[in-house]
Amino acid sequence: MSVNINRTDQKRVVIVGGGLGGLRLANQLKDSNLQVVLIDKNNYHQFPPLIYQVASAGLAPSSISFPFRQIFRKRKNFYFRMAEARAVFPDKKILQTSIGKIDYDYLVFAAGATTNFFGNKNVEEWAIPMRTLSEAMGLRNALLSNLERALTCATEEERQELLNVVIVGGGATGVEIAGAISEMKRYVIPYDYPDMDASHMHIYLLEAGDRLLAGMSQEASEKALKYLREMGVDVQFGKMVTDYRDYHIIIKDGTSIATRTFLWVSGIRAQPITGIEGDKLGRGFRILVDGCNRVPGYDNIFAIGDQCLMTADPAYPKGHPQLAQVAIQQATQLAENLKKLSQGNADLKPFHYNDLGSMATVGRNKAVADLGKVRTQGFMAWMLWLIVHLRSILGVRNKLMVMLSWAWQYFSYNVSIRTIVYATKPKMIRERIKREQTTHLGEDLMQEE
Amino acid sequence: MSVNINRTDQKRVVIVGGGLGGLRLANQLKDSNLQVVLIDKNNYHQFPPLIYQVASAGLAPSSISFPFRQIFRKRKNFYFRMAEARAVFPDKKILQTSIGKIDYDYLVFAAGATTNFFGNKNVEEWAIPMRTLSEAMGLRNALLSNLERALTCATEEERQELLNVVIVGGGATGVEIAGAISEMKRYVIPYDYPDMDASHMHIYLLEAGDRLLAGMSQEASEKALKYLREMGVDVQFGKMVTDYRDYHIIIKDGTSIATRTFLWVSGIRAQPITGIEGDKLGRGFRILVDGCNRVPGYDNIFAIGDQCLMTADPAYPKGHPQLAQVAIQQATQLAENLKKLSQGNADLKPFHYNDLGSMATVGRNKAVADLGKVRTQGFMAWMLWLIVHLRSILGVRNKLMVMLSWAWQYFSYNVSIRTIVYATKPKMIRERIKREQTTHLGEDLMQEE
Repeated sequence: MSVNINRTDQKRVVIVGGGLGGLRLANQLKDSNLQVVLIDKNNYHQFPPLIYQVASAGLAPSSISFPFRQIFRKRKNFYFRMAEARAVFPDKKILQTSIGKIDYDYLVFAAGATTNFFGNKNVEEWAIPMRTLSEAMGLRNALLSNLERALTCATEEERQELLNVVIVGGGATGVEIAGAISEMKRYVIPYDYPDMDASHMHIYLLEAGDRLLAGMSQEASEKALKYLREMGVDVQFGKMVTDYRDYHIIIKDGTSIATRTFLWVSGIRAQPITGIEGDKLGRGFRILVDGCNRVPGYDNIFAIGDQCLMTADPAYPKGHPQLAQVAIQQATQLAENLKKLSQGNADLKPFHYNDLGSMATVGRNKAVADLGKVRTQGFMAWMLWLIVHLRSILGVRNKLMVMLSWAWQYFSYNVSIRTIVYATKPKMIRERIKREQTTHLGEDLMQEE
Repeated sequence: MSVNINRTDQKRVVIVGGGLGGLRLANQLKDSNLQVVLIDKNNYHQFPPLIYQVASAGLAPSSISFPFRQIFRKRKNFYFRMAEARAVFPDKKILQTSIGKIDYDYLVFAAGATTNFFGNKNVEEWAIPMRTLSEAMGLRNALLSNLERALTCATEEERQELLNVVIVGGGATGVEIAGAISEMKRYVIPYDYPDMDASHMHIYLLEAGDRLLAGMSQEASEKALKYLREMGVDVQFGKMVTDYRDYHIIIKDGTSIATRTFLWVSGIRAQPITGIEGDKLGRGFRILVDGCNRVPGYDNIFAIGDQCLMTADPAYPKGHPQLAQVAIQQATQLAENLKKLSQGNADLKPFHYNDLGSMATVGRNKAVADLGKVRTQGFMAWMLWLIVHLRSILGVRNKLMVMLSWAWQYFSYNVSIRTIVYATKPKMIRERIKREQTTHLGEDLMQEE
């Protein structure tokens, strides 16, 4: 296999990852004199802020995903390849991927972050993460099928394990999914499961620290806590999860909670890549970059967004928070710098993060928003959240589908996508996936030499 | 585990399968004095006529599926259980399922049919069927990922295997999916894959007989053939597929076609169940029934739709065609008969099929319809097809979603759901599925005795 892209007289930038950062970068390079190659393991862009609504059966996966080939239709000198990055060989300016090697003039890592299980193998094996669309669909299926089984299981003990939902991690994702599941408990379960006592369903939100939404204002944290408790979520602080055994979450303070619906949204880390290792990585395997998102030691390798750690921005000496806005702004800045570089101008402009604020939604008419000095909670924040997110979704069709789903849900008090469905994986595809996952690092390079 | 449903003073009817027949039956028994228990391996009803549009990326799976619990909200004395039927013990009036046993007063098999590979193991292993939503999603993923790989594969030979799409079976499903894929080739590939020569993509439709749509009029067959050939589909007759080896379909006449996108829509058969065996089954494992859909030898076991074979209807001495209309009409009739039986009236009314006609769509503005003596093709038939199917989809929300998708697709010439996405399967769920699949037949019964 080979990536199979012809070289032109334009220089080539290879972008690894089509998340919010990678996508923005590719878009901003539209009128540049660079050939853009985007690689992503999926053939679609997904919109992270709404992934939790796929998990809670509110939105169809197709409403918040968008095929890259659709986004870049009609774009000149742009190439998409569905592949995973495996290793980089900076001396040769070559990136090894699951489908072969590709040479670059500029290389940008924008692969985001993955779930951090902090080395706990049992948790990694059993907990359900929620970073990707695939994981969210898996979670939805698990949630719904645990409810089905709660009706028919053999013992009271197992029934309680099936009905306890435990969410570990009190960040925005944890708060949002806890809210969504508690609304499902209130508005869906009693009607869908008349032969089940919904009051036996317990929703726990465990946070190791002492407040929710640690990245937001104290005011927002307190209000989110108040909302969740009113909605019947059992929020507990100072709960550090250390293990999962026999369908029980083990907590450092010696307590435990029985559950078979164990959600893990407690932290993220970057996925290291062979070739960028050791002293080039900061905490959480984030690639260290200078003020212009360049990896020190290389003049043509960059990293943006969740995958990088920049300490040069004076206002953020410990690095930026891993938020969509940071990735998008870094991508915009880097696009300018890459255009300069490709024209022989090495005078790059450093990045400064402009915090536009942050928001989290808890439930119907309930959200919290910090917008600089302005802080608002409740209906206004919720409307704002809806508008901001609707505007950010790519494509008119998807906007329409999401809007329709939200309106339907709002008036019917009902989430619609309550189906437990898995795509079959035809043998042809299973075999190929196996082959591509076992592509050896530098295999193509070896063969060549 | 146990099915865990309390007996009331009402008699209980257990319906196996919530397809068009089972669903209709459950609905028609609404105001009866029977307790209705519906079991299905999925938690949702799917709408078979549009499954091919999920496969061809036109519709989201959620638009043509509907959770059973939503359908039967507010219904008194109705129970749904997600389970698979394993065996029936008529003497004890007990049905063994994957989640335990359930006793019945009346038992109705309405589990439909599955793909028939006619005993060919290689074909079963490699071909992609398209009977269920899960299979359609699997096919969509395979189609799209084969296109991605056609760009990057190592040899010209493999490229051609990836670009050849071979559909085996010239019935309605085969015709419809061939048409949909040829429109994808024409309207999507050239824009999505500017670096691919779409003319290298070949679509074959192989039929063993001598015409398409064998169940419809000669006129419809000929018109469908004309449409497909105009659309560039290579339709071949007299092609009996005997094997699949080394990415080649082997045909009885000694020829072969290279392909890695091998669709099998060539026949269906029922899934036999332990306890209803031997002389109780007709061709394709269909359960033999009398004119009232009763299984001979039992006064309280019935079968309807694709799963049964009735030869008592004078107009259909060889049995009815396996069509939605037959299942629905039999369900309606059986509901009446069950109500009579439960009131102690054994004077059942026999079933007579009223053929309302049939239709198949080939592409934009192109369909064929036989409506009794009236036969129409082209735009009128296509409009009729749209209206009839839109009307038949369950639920206002789904109707709206499908209508919107169709309108979008019609005006943009673009199918929207071109994402390759699989739900993860959390370990908790994998383990449970394994356990339930290996439940031994009659296990619960043994334990009891």
